Amino acid sequence: MEHRSLIVVALGGNAISRPEEEGIVDQQFANSRATAKALADLIEQGHHLVITHGNGPQIGNFLLRNEAAAGAIYPLPMEVAVAHVQGGMGYMIAQTLTNELNARGYDRMVTAIVTTVRVDGDDPSFRNPTKPIGRVLPKEDAERFARDEGWAIKEVSPGKFRRVVASPIPRHIMEIKTIRRCVAAGDLVVVCGGGGVPVVQNPVHGLRGVRAVIDKDLASGLLAAELNAHMMMILTNVDRVSIDYGKPTQRTLERMTLVQAQRFMDEGQFPAGSMGPKIQGAINFLQASRNGDASVIIGPLHHAIDAVAGRIGTRITKA
Amino acid sequence: MEHRSLIVVALGGNAISRPEEEGIVDQQFANSRATAKALADLIEQGHHLVITHGNGPQIGNFLLRNEAAAGAIYPLPMEVAVAHVQGGMGYMIAQTLTNELNARGYDRMVTAIVTTVRVDGDDPSFRNPTKPIGRVLPKEDAERFARDEGWAIKEVSPGKFRRVVASPIPRHIMEIKTIRRCVAAGDLVVVCGGGGVPVVQNPVHGLRGVRAVIDKDLASGLLAAELNAHMMMILTNVDRVSIDYGKPTQRTLERMTLVQAQRFMDEGQFPAGSMGPKIQGAINFLQASRNGDASVIIGPLHHAIDAVAGRIGTRITKA
Repeated sequence: MEHRSLIVVALGGNAISRPEEEGIVDQQFANSRATAKALADLIEQGHHLVITHGNGPQIGNFLLRNEAAAGAIYPLPMEVAVAHVQGGMGYMIAQTLTNELNARGYDRMVTAIVTTVRVDGDDPSFRNPTKPIGRVLPKEDAERFARDEGWAIKEVSPGKFRRVVASPIPRHIMEIKTIRRCVAAGDLVVVCGGGGVPVVQNPVHGLRGVRAVIDKDLASGLLAAELNAHMMMILTNVDRVSIDYGKPTQRTLERMTLVQAQRFMDEGQFPAGSMGPKIQGAINFLQASRNGDASVIIGPLHHAIDAVAGRIGTRITKA
Repeated sequence: MEHRSLIVVALGGNAISRPEEEGIVDQQFANSRATAKALADLIEQGHHLVITHGNGPQIGNFLLRNEAAAGAIYPLPMEVAVAHVQGGMGYMIAQTLTNELNARGYDRMVTAIVTTVRVDGDDPSFRNPTKPIGRVLPKEDAERFARDEGWAIKEVSPGKFRRVVASPIPRHIMEIKTIRRCVAAGDLVVVCGGGGVPVVQNPVHGLRGVRAVIDKDLASGLLAAELNAHMMMILTNVDRVSIDYGKPTQRTLERMTLVQAQRFMDEGQFPAGSMGPKIQGAINFLQASRNGDASVIIGPLHHAIDAVAGRIGTRITKA
């Protein structure tokens, strides 16, 4: 299956939640409607999209509800929470994009698929969890959750603690055959929400969820490789990727080759919590891709068309 | 698309949660594993299944969490909660059935699809909500939620109140094209969780979720009709459908025709909260079906094979 213009579009946090808002559901729908316009612009240009998305604010809020209700009702484990949020966010993103396409006269129906992603049971991150999740905790709460719930806790700034979970490397999109068939038939699908539900393949028990979160950009890079996509677009809130960030020598990049991207990564140019996984996801996709002209664009969500045309954003290519 | 042995299997509450248990996630997974064995038995006999499921205990618990956290974090509206629970339960049911099939040597991957179901915006149930949802409330809580949240409240027994929501008639499975394609390709899918997320088609705004829940048996009957399934199985905790329930003339039925089923419904033989929607879903499917030999079986979950063979359960046919 080769689609000349198959694009995996990874939506960043700002596609659904904006830091300056409370983030209530109505605001999330309004942001999702605005995001749908950017996606519909790409579809109108003839690109076939497969859409992925993060879940940072939503999973944090979900866990807050879990915690607030802990005395009254059983908690949902991390990976089951990720599956729930895939349902809720997938519904929202699929519905708003369907509506935007219908309003433009296209009879399309976008569908969200619950997606699980295999990780290695011996991934080193399980021994050294680093991905912060949920709210900032005062010391006494942090100690209590560590004791009662077995949470790993990290002091993110003096006196401020957060739960940290493992963020293992994604190895395989378990539902890839179904996703491929949907794509081949022209269906628009929302998949790998929040990076996908992490599962391990246990020789005795089969697939089992694990208490971890997968980085959505790494999952998207794997998905793009497994779909043999032509392009991955990581839509976020920056106009272009920068190097020497915050230094007098800071500059933005219009293009990078795979070799240059790897060298910048090795130099530590990209912070682990933000640009790092985006560049790593791009590298993973381009290295795995069988398309010589595969490319990655990292650019601003609401100028997706300009990013494809090269007027904004950073394009990463094999050579 | 005609599948001689395409069966829509509607799983009742006991497939995942049992009243004698606390209902924590580990127990739900254990029950789901047992259910997967019954489903795998059917698949091994050569039937192609499309699986639907209810969400009663889970959505109640989800709303409890919502409520417990109301001071700290924005609530999720009813239909967005249904979408979340589709993700969480779909993940569980798909994973446990995948594992059971793999353990039996079949290389199959079951996939959950977030499903929305169109209802009429002027469905009479919106003016007269009757479906109880969530926990029993004391009077003061009931009055507060009615005032602050606009909930419709019903006194279910003296001094005991519950929230009631509309339960509109399902009109169309929005993702049916994608579901048909998955079925045609041999994929096993979990769809219409909790009856589906109810949406209305608004001429200005497009599709919009509505604060309601759809009966899962009615949604399953519609799905079976739209898939032109050969059979619908409603797997529950009764051996057979009874008439004259609780009277000296009570008897169980091995078979019913569509005409008989309709007559029993008209006589008020089946209570609205339990057997009523099952029989109505069966009637709707058989009336809409283009297969002369379409049938519905209502029977016990853990004897699904016996039910298909006619050794247990009640079979409803067109004539």
